[in-house]
Amino acid sequence: MKKASLSLLLGFILISSAFAQKKEVFHLSEFEKEFGYAQAVKIGDIVYFSGTVSGAATMEAQVEDIYNKIRRTLEHYGLTEKHIVKENIYTKDITALAAANEKRKAFYKGNTPAATWIQIDQLFSPQSMVEIEVTAHVNVE
Amino acid sequence: MKKASLSLLLGFILISSAFAQKKEVFHLSEFEKEFGYAQAVKIGDIVYFSGTVSGAATMEAQVEDIYNKIRRTLEHYGLTEKHIVKENIYTKDITALAAANEKRKAFYKGNTPAATWIQIDQLFSPQSMVEIEVTAHVNVE
Amino acid sequence: MKKASLSLLLGFILISSAFAQKKEVFHLSEFEKEFGYAQAVKIGDIVYFSGTVSGAATMEAQVEDIYNKIRRTLEHYGLTEKHIVKENIYTKDITALAAANEKRKAFYKGNTPAATWIQIDQLFSPQSMVEIEVTAHVNVE
Repeated sequence: MKKASLSLLLGFILISSAFAQKKEVFHLSEFEKEFGYAQAVKIGDIVYFSGTVSGAATMEAQVEDIYNKIRRTLEHYGLTEKHIVKENIYTKDITALAAANEKRKAFYKGNTPAATWIQIDQLFSPQSMVEIEVTAHVNVE
Repeated sequence: MKKASLSLLLGFILISSAFAQKKEVFHLSEFEKEFGYAQAVKIGDIVYFSGTVSGAATMEAQVEDIYNKIRRTLEHYGLTEKHIVKENIYTKDITALAAANEKRKAFYKGNTPAATWIQIDQLFSPQSMVEIEVTAHVNVE
Repeated sequence: MKKASLSLLLGFILISSAFAQKKEVFHLSEFEKEFGYAQAVKIGDIVYFSGTVSGAATMEAQVEDIYNKIRRTLEHYGLTEKHIVKENIYTKDITALAAANEKRKAFYKGNTPAATWIQIDQLFSPQSMVEIEVTAHVNVE
């Protein structure tokens, strides 16, 4: 009976360790805090990213710069591009974005997330041509 | 050996309790059911929200009204704004939305979800100026 | 003490079986691999889908064709429409999409995912009128 009690206790510890989830918020700038959002939020096994933008001059340079920011964010959580499972891209020019796809593929190194690309009217800042949002999972074999 | 069997049994109970997930659907109106969607669906630790809209007259009033609907939905699941980890905002006027950000910050009370804001052509109803979609997690410390 | 050790060992096995997650990537075409994305990625309990499109001639035919592709993808993972918990639809004509809703409801058979529909400028291919992205969970009672 004492062993059974121990097993039960262990069971509750296991359940609570599996279910208790600490939110880990990551900021890239002070502006984010003032405006009320975060570059990324980790909860349990999932890291949710904000749509990430760049002030660079061309579509290709913005794409490269954005994936560098995404890499910095991944590194904060000890992750790499292989942990990204979903990508949503919002752009003002989907043809120019497709032309810059080699920069994106260089970042992913063969990883193929599920992806949705759409062309929209406007992003937060008028100089933004593209905004990239990803979702990563922590435990990926 | 009997204790080992007990431990194994307990193990299976733990695994199944961790993995069996009941979908909990929440509706704000009968229209949702007719049209074939739900205001929110909870599965496991995650609550997925529909993009939420308002028929109010101004951007500021729509933002306030939408976060009230989101609060009602969170309360249905016993949650608060701190459980929101991701926010996607779709608006016809991103400048007017930014000007209404104090209403949004008043809702979040310092919580900073990952967030993506984009300006798009049109929402489901022509009078909608903004649609806000969030994702919440249930177990947040 | 030996039983306690066994329980502890079992505990670690349970924790690692709950946490080790194999990414299962599904492609509908060779184009996806070249371009650097996948129709769907399963990780843990979640299946993330790419926005799915169709080359059919009308909105109604595109909607029907897209849900057929989503069904094929679900079937690959042993799932059905009841496992879909979230839907994001991007369309160039939200009025035409609403008029085709019976095709969508026929697919869902009473399941009501959380859903966000927005009208945008352009999808990846100019002939695409609508792109449908879903998220499914594996363990749904």
